[in-house]
Amino acid sequence: MDTTAAPTPATAPASHFERFTEERSAEVVASSFANTPDPRLRELLTSLVHHLHAFAKDVELTVDEWATAVRFLTDVGATCTPVRQEFVLLSDVLGLSMLVETITNRASGATESTVEGPFHMVDSPPRALGADIALDGKGEPCLVTGRVTSVDGTPVTGAVVDVWQANADGFYDVQQPDIQPERNLRGLFTPDDEGRFWFRSIVPLYYPIPDDGPVGALLAATGRHPYRPAHVHFDVRADGFRPLVTHLFVEGTPYIDSDAVFGVKDSLVREFPTVDDPARAAEFGLPNPFRTVHFDVVLRPVDVTGEQDDASRRTRS
Amino acid sequence: MDTTAAPTPATAPASHFERFTEERSAEVVASSFANTPDPRLRELLTSLVHHLHAFAKDVELTVDEWATAVRFLTDVGATCTPVRQEFVLLSDVLGLSMLVETITNRASGATESTVEGPFHMVDSPPRALGADIALDGKGEPCLVTGRVTSVDGTPVTGAVVDVWQANADGFYDVQQPDIQPERNLRGLFTPDDEGRFWFRSIVPLYYPIPDDGPVGALLAATGRHPYRPAHVHFDVRADGFRPLVTHLFVEGTPYIDSDAVFGVKDSLVREFPTVDDPARAAEFGLPNPFRTVHFDVVLRPVDVTGEQDDASRRTRS
Repeated sequence: MDTTAAPTPATAPASHFERFTEERSAEVVASSFANTPDPRLRELLTSLVHHLHAFAKDVELTVDEWATAVRFLTDVGATCTPVRQEFVLLSDVLGLSMLVETITNRASGATESTVEGPFHMVDSPPRALGADIALDGKGEPCLVTGRVTSVDGTPVTGAVVDVWQANADGFYDVQQPDIQPERNLRGLFTPDDEGRFWFRSIVPLYYPIPDDGPVGALLAATGRHPYRPAHVHFDVRADGFRPLVTHLFVEGTPYIDSDAVFGVKDSLVREFPTVDDPARAAEFGLPNPFRTVHFDVVLRPVDVTGEQDDASRRTRS
Repeated sequence: MDTTAAPTPATAPASHFERFTEERSAEVVASSFANTPDPRLRELLTSLVHHLHAFAKDVELTVDEWATAVRFLTDVGATCTPVRQEFVLLSDVLGLSMLVETITNRASGATESTVEGPFHMVDSPPRALGADIALDGKGEPCLVTGRVTSVDGTPVTGAVVDVWQANADGFYDVQQPDIQPERNLRGLFTPDDEGRFWFRSIVPLYYPIPDDGPVGALLAATGRHPYRPAHVHFDVRADGFRPLVTHLFVEGTPYIDSDAVFGVKDSLVREFPTVDDPARAAEFGLPNPFRTVHFDVVLRPVDVTGEQDDASRRTRS
């Protein structure tokens, strides 16, 4: 048997690359993607290779550092479970999630978006307006009110307002399946004909992102804390409008200026004033006095710039 | 309970970031690493964040594409096992492994390096000079000879030459633990006093990298084949010299110009001529005629540029 007459290759060599050199490494590797049928995938990989190689060259990455990175990514992978997405956490603490969310939703004239975060892992249960989503009896009762309108101020009918938040101990229900009631602090609300919604919850508290895995170790190694300022998640959708994923932040919460995932935008911060009004408390089934917050949501029609309804671009990580 | 008087944060906010904007995203995130105690880690993360954000901005990465990337990396993680390193494969097909290896070993005056690859997962067994490392009786017998010298041509004594290669079916022993003999086609040789080494093996064949996982799917989606040109791995070490990890490639092997991991360098390609010499065949215990290859290895003393012995920078992935 002669090697040059070895078994016919199962795949004919698709292309002949220029031979690898340090100077032309990115061009050589990018050329290997020249036959990618999907032009967008080709564009993404070509740019990725150029930036990845530029990074390695700028810092003169050593084999040992590369091996540390491989071990780190392997650990990140091993930490992922059906209820924990460590790669999303990694993207979050590097600001990539926030950047991508901002690029996707830029210049919309609507309520600003922020990261979805890794905890929208289960469907929120449909609830009647006014319902209490705090099922575990902990925390400070709060009446949340708001209105969904279009950018021109007209109410949006048929919207669906999906809310979720951590409990008074700083954990989402999916993090404590044995402790918290199922679907605690989650609700899916349909606003009334004037676009108004209201429900009872608790004033959110700041909490740490899960920091017992490799991403937590990265934060510790870099002198960063793992905390997120207090917030309520909103995902608001309506036919004919761009979906909105955002947070309502509590004014004055700790970590408002050092969110571990960089999610804070000024326009999303609200006061949560205390109201002393026995009649209103009784009307909504709340103790008196009670905390309140009002959060109006402005959606942008998909036809404002002729774009497609990009619901498919959204993700449920 | 008042939120602004919520439980004292376990960690005082370490710093106050500038609020996130698309324009200044990389600067904002990089500033969060300002307190990293290790200056090299701070440098690496700062550069990584700048390049990562520049990539997302250059391609205007969408949330949906980001989610696809998260799923891909999660799949890569789930494919890793004690005998399979899918992140190394990913780094290999993006040319990053080759780039880092080249940066780490540049301008050495010694034999050129190439990627280690993911299959040096077990120790090679010590063998006597002249031993046959092909334990499965397959393939075309080949006598491999060579000499280990310093850059000035003097023989290196006390070197250890570690070799490993795939079998005639294109698989390493660790990929076929139930089929191949243990430590098939692996050997650890100690050259003689003149730096010479020789052993029996088989002429290597080209083979595909493992392509039944997410990295294989990436290659398929980009029109790339998964093949590597035929090669024998070498890892040569000696006290006082830079460790060398490289390949010996077969001249004329398929895929020599489109190696899936970009590992080929001109200086590492050799002819494997056929020798018709009954006496020599008998001397080495080979059938006649037989194939041969000669591969001299040149090591660079660690004191050539005053650098430290950087054995610790090498990795066994």
